Amino acid sequence: MSESQLSKWVWYPGDYEIWLHGKVSVLRQFRGYIVPPLWRLDSAYTNVKFRRQFDLPQPEELTISVQGEFALHLDNNMTPIPYEHQKITSVLIPTGKHELTISVFSDQVIPAIYSALGLIADDGGEWEVTAHNGKWVKAGSGVFNDIDIPPQKFPFSYETIIPVSVTDVDGGILVDFGRETFGYVQFLGVVGKGVIQLYYGESREEALAEELAETYDKLAVDVESLPQDYASPVTRAFRYIKLKADEGVSWRELSHEYEYLPLQQQGSFRCSEARINQIWEVSAHTLHMNMREFIYDGMKRDRWVWSGDANLGFLINNYVFFDQAVTKRTLIALRGKEPIETHMNTIMDYTFYWFISLHDYYLYTGDIAFVQANYPKMLSLLEFCLNRRNKEGMMEGQPDDWIFVDWAEMDRRGELSFEQLLFCRSLEIVAIFANVLADHENGSRLEQLARELKERIFSVFWNQELGGFIHSRLDGELNKQLLKYPSMFALRFGYLNAEQEEQVRQNVLLEETVQKIKTPFMRFFELEALCNIGEQAHVLGEIRDYWGGMLDLGATTFWEEYDPALADDLQYDMYGDKFRKSLCHAWGAAPIYLLGKYGLGVTPEEPGYKQYRVKPNLCGLDWIEGTIPTPNGELAVFMDKSRIRVHTNRSGVGILEITSEQLPTANEGIFQSMGNKRYELMLDRPEFLYEILY
Amino acid sequence: MSESQLSKWVWYPGDYEIWLHGKVSVLRQFRGYIVPPLWRLDSAYTNVKFRRQFDLPQPEELTISVQGEFALHLDNNMTPIPYEHQKITSVLIPTGKHELTISVFSDQVIPAIYSALGLIADDGGEWEVTAHNGKWVKAGSGVFNDIDIPPQKFPFSYETIIPVSVTDVDGGILVDFGRETFGYVQFLGVVGKGVIQLYYGESREEALAEELAETYDKLAVDVESLPQDYASPVTRAFRYIKLKADEGVSWRELSHEYEYLPLQQQGSFRCSEARINQIWEVSAHTLHMNMREFIYDGMKRDRWVWSGDANLGFLINNYVFFDQAVTKRTLIALRGKEPIETHMNTIMDYTFYWFISLHDYYLYTGDIAFVQANYPKMLSLLEFCLNRRNKEGMMEGQPDDWIFVDWAEMDRRGELSFEQLLFCRSLEIVAIFANVLADHENGSRLEQLARELKERIFSVFWNQELGGFIHSRLDGELNKQLLKYPSMFALRFGYLNAEQEEQVRQNVLLEETVQKIKTPFMRFFELEALCNIGEQAHVLGEIRDYWGGMLDLGATTFWEEYDPALADDLQYDMYGDKFRKSLCHAWGAAPIYLLGKYGLGVTPEEPGYKQYRVKPNLCGLDWIEGTIPTPNGELAVFMDKSRIRVHTNRSGVGILEITSEQLPTANEGIFQSMGNKRYELMLDRPEFLYEILY
Repeated sequence: MSESQLSKWVWYPGDYEIWLHGKVSVLRQFRGYIVPPLWRLDSAYTNVKFRRQFDLPQPEELTISVQGEFALHLDNNMTPIPYEHQKITSVLIPTGKHELTISVFSDQVIPAIYSALGLIADDGGEWEVTAHNGKWVKAGSGVFNDIDIPPQKFPFSYETIIPVSVTDVDGGILVDFGRETFGYVQFLGVVGKGVIQLYYGESREEALAEELAETYDKLAVDVESLPQDYASPVTRAFRYIKLKADEGVSWRELSHEYEYLPLQQQGSFRCSEARINQIWEVSAHTLHMNMREFIYDGMKRDRWVWSGDANLGFLINNYVFFDQAVTKRTLIALRGKEPIETHMNTIMDYTFYWFISLHDYYLYTGDIAFVQANYPKMLSLLEFCLNRRNKEGMMEGQPDDWIFVDWAEMDRRGELSFEQLLFCRSLEIVAIFANVLADHENGSRLEQLARELKERIFSVFWNQELGGFIHSRLDGELNKQLLKYPSMFALRFGYLNAEQEEQVRQNVLLEETVQKIKTPFMRFFELEALCNIGEQAHVLGEIRDYWGGMLDLGATTFWEEYDPALADDLQYDMYGDKFRKSLCHAWGAAPIYLLGKYGLGVTPEEPGYKQYRVKPNLCGLDWIEGTIPTPNGELAVFMDKSRIRVHTNRSGVGILEITSEQLPTANEGIFQSMGNKRYELMLDRPEFLYEILY
Repeated sequence: MSESQLSKWVWYPGDYEIWLHGKVSVLRQFRGYIVPPLWRLDSAYTNVKFRRQFDLPQPEELTISVQGEFALHLDNNMTPIPYEHQKITSVLIPTGKHELTISVFSDQVIPAIYSALGLIADDGGEWEVTAHNGKWVKAGSGVFNDIDIPPQKFPFSYETIIPVSVTDVDGGILVDFGRETFGYVQFLGVVGKGVIQLYYGESREEALAEELAETYDKLAVDVESLPQDYASPVTRAFRYIKLKADEGVSWRELSHEYEYLPLQQQGSFRCSEARINQIWEVSAHTLHMNMREFIYDGMKRDRWVWSGDANLGFLINNYVFFDQAVTKRTLIALRGKEPIETHMNTIMDYTFYWFISLHDYYLYTGDIAFVQANYPKMLSLLEFCLNRRNKEGMMEGQPDDWIFVDWAEMDRRGELSFEQLLFCRSLEIVAIFANVLADHENGSRLEQLARELKERIFSVFWNQELGGFIHSRLDGELNKQLLKYPSMFALRFGYLNAEQEEQVRQNVLLEETVQKIKTPFMRFFELEALCNIGEQAHVLGEIRDYWGGMLDLGATTFWEEYDPALADDLQYDMYGDKFRKSLCHAWGAAPIYLLGKYGLGVTPEEPGYKQYRVKPNLCGLDWIEGTIPTPNGELAVFMDKSRIRVHTNRSGVGILEITSEQLPTANEGIFQSMGNKRYELMLDRPEFLYEILY
């Protein structure tokens, strides 16, 4: 049964997310001026009509509030139902079957309605809505359940935070909040007349650089008699602030309103090494800072929603907060409205990551309703791609398409094997959804297209001699450069046979001479690929060194990029500017995913954890333990050198897979040998503590 | 050379029109509540970027004003150009070639910029704009040329009008403004505390009906000491107002702010019959009332832009105001944005009228630039139609499609011959534009499709026995009803040969037993068809009786519908409500078109009156005279029973065509006999008074 839409605000599905995305996408600033995103921002429908059928055993008062101008009509009567109050009104619905329609217009906020029945909790009806766009769809809803708070500003939580230190520095004072944070700055008890300059820094150096900082604010104060309170005009990301006040301007107290999305940390990880535990905690803070209305790339810069970045954010979120509402909002915002005119975020690969994210979402949650609601938009996005294929049936960059892959140097012209692999996977994913949704015509068509494309990819780009995928083809001419990206992703998508996997392992993943990956974004997939070939201990070393290296430099959140080889005073430099680098970047939280999926070893194998695998790996540590959130409660895993404990969740069937010198034993069930020292145990008792000796 | 975009506001082309259309489309009210249109309303792009290249012989100050949040960048420098004032700022453009970009965001008003160079009037550059939608296009502009007045509310003119009478009536007073008008009501010098009720009436009866009137307002006044002025909150259409004031509330003076689009009456018509002259003048007032931001259907109701209604409005406008700016705004607003999800105004025929209107616009103005700017949107609308064809390659109504044709009773299911004819004409029109714009691939394709469709239409629907087109086909079954619509339009489009024309004349147009047309909308085309078969005198009789009949009932503007057979007290009833009928409806102004095109007889034959025909017809009157506006100045025509005078315009070649018992003579040139008593004279001297005896 579908969730009741009563006693909550409802709107045209997706419109709040799209409207909000438009609002927040221009909050990025650079030295006082807006930096709007380089993609189209869409708007909510302005002219919508809601309808709902009631079937009541007795007359009922329906309480209604509407955001926008509106008119109410019962049973298609031309004359509107009169109402007095714009804000809250009451409509008497007679006994029996009746249809109420509410026409709403607003071009400033999203048209939305709130309704609640008096004595009857719910008669099972459903609000449908049309934007007069040729269809009626089920109305959408979200975090707005209070009749007095219509869907406008996103409802954040706030916490007042006091600086950990305030220091006199040249020409002003330096305020330190101890770690990266986000929100407003408050000045309590201000007196005087003049200006307070605020220079924000994710690093001490940035704040002290004043006009060279990425963000700053100017607060004009003018207090004649009694002290007054002032707040900074917009939210900022920072740890430090350098303050410069005009002569005579002073305040009693300075604090910070930390603005955040309240999240429950459902996943956890601890192990025998404190450094790794610290990395996990800082990762969680890093992700939390970037999980808000949507999952952003970084909170100082760009404060934008990027499809590829979000793909990583979603995956990490699944191992810590498991907040799927933010995932859904982000997927909706990214996709925007019809027509598709450019790739997502203008990047070809980022279009494909959107499909991959949807599949990940489905696998981790089993939420087919969301998939179904977005299915038409998947099809149209895929058609956009199909219509852009060249004569060879492959995708190559057209003018203004951005081919990203990674910041590393490469030839981006022509057909990149990497892009074809992502495209092929996208076709497969939509085919999967088509079949689940019984759209078998598209299912077969897309399966066929994927199959043909995969054959073409292997025949053109797989190089048996080199033992990996070559980079690209331009005007029929092959570029035989061996880069890690295509082989990593082919491995990830399960496209390689055992022999090819071994070739990739030797010639690509572990081969030192292959060009290094540049972004932590792509490093995420590289480390995952290494885990997939059993190199967990190696990956743990990378986590210790790379993320630990940032901690050594004082990081309180993880960065957009980190190069241990750089001198300290160049660490904050990026894109040609001194403090451009984001020091709080969602993809910096990768260790949570790696430790959860490849340390604790938990992965869903059927949508919504209906079936899952637990394949714990000590990663060279003495012991590891932690919890993994699922739609059916937490899974807990402990492992040391001789024992494994798994506490199962409420439903779903797990398979515990371990490598052991001897046949492991369990307090419930019997291990099956899978050969090669691999053993599997069926975890089919819900909420049970399996204790294993191996 | 293209018109300079300096010293005016520019925006993403079409966005002001689309934004404004959204605003005005919800101004319709019914008894105090909004009545939003039943089609999707689109929004302006929120996130746009302007760019312009300057090539200056010396540094110049560029004065800039921006509507929206913005950032300025020169030559792709990452660091924005600083500015102090949000409203007007100044940017120094260095000598030589430089590119300035302005990123603008607004989700409340349309992003727009104003720019003016200091010493140099214009360096020939052009503002381009993108909505980050994969293309850069030339920026659009309109009626906003003042740096202090950014594109928001449409700039109307106002005139204060005093009532012609104020009469005490039961429970209040009745104010009469003498004729239908539009705007606000002003109360000067109000004292007292309480409510003034305003009941508007296009008729006396409607105002007196109070709560049964279509529109009313309530004005709460509260004056403690000195008298104050009050105005009604929104614009209304009315001639009468019944006012009811609470005890103790009074005012010194009541007036009305008439809100209108200033238009020059460039066309004129006078003849030997005063009644006809009066009809022409009332027609001009009727059209003027409905020509505002856009051409509306009616000003009390619906205050909406309907494609079919507008098609007539455009044609009439060409013979009186020749204001093409309103035509362009209307065509843009009607088309809206991608994607096309329903027919225009949800009506299949109204989609086709949009193409027909564009062709009319091109024929009367020769403005290929506007056609070109809208060409992609023509193609996508046509593709929408092509994708909706049934297996027979014909258009039939899908669920939620509205098949209008006329309000008369008919079976609207299946393939209507009328719709196929309009579809065929639409294909031809876009083919014409494609070829003019050198898109020969589409030109040939669409010509071919039109040719095939026309053959199919004739083979399925032309009935040689009945001598006209039969009505429809449903699931292969013909409906042989003979209605006037398809034959009238086939005649209009020139699809009939001489024999078929004669059949249609006898069996359809002049045949009394054929079902009568219901709407004045369709009567327009019927009267035109009658003129096209030489029945001008008959049509003049219709004008005299039908429009004259409304005058006899006190009309000061012409109505949405008029049935002389109805009792007087039922004349204002429509759509099941007592005063629902619009008494000021644009299509009521048809006599201007009929008298201009078929009386004075002026028609463009090549785009922009490059070639035109003058075929005057006395319509049974003693004399007629008048002027016809063209893009190249006015054409003046006089005719009585023996003389014709034509004063030619500045350029273009006319052909005077007359029927005469003997060879006519002229003060310039020689008549050619065309047989059948028809004679033609070439009017190739510009601004010359041709005097003809016939």
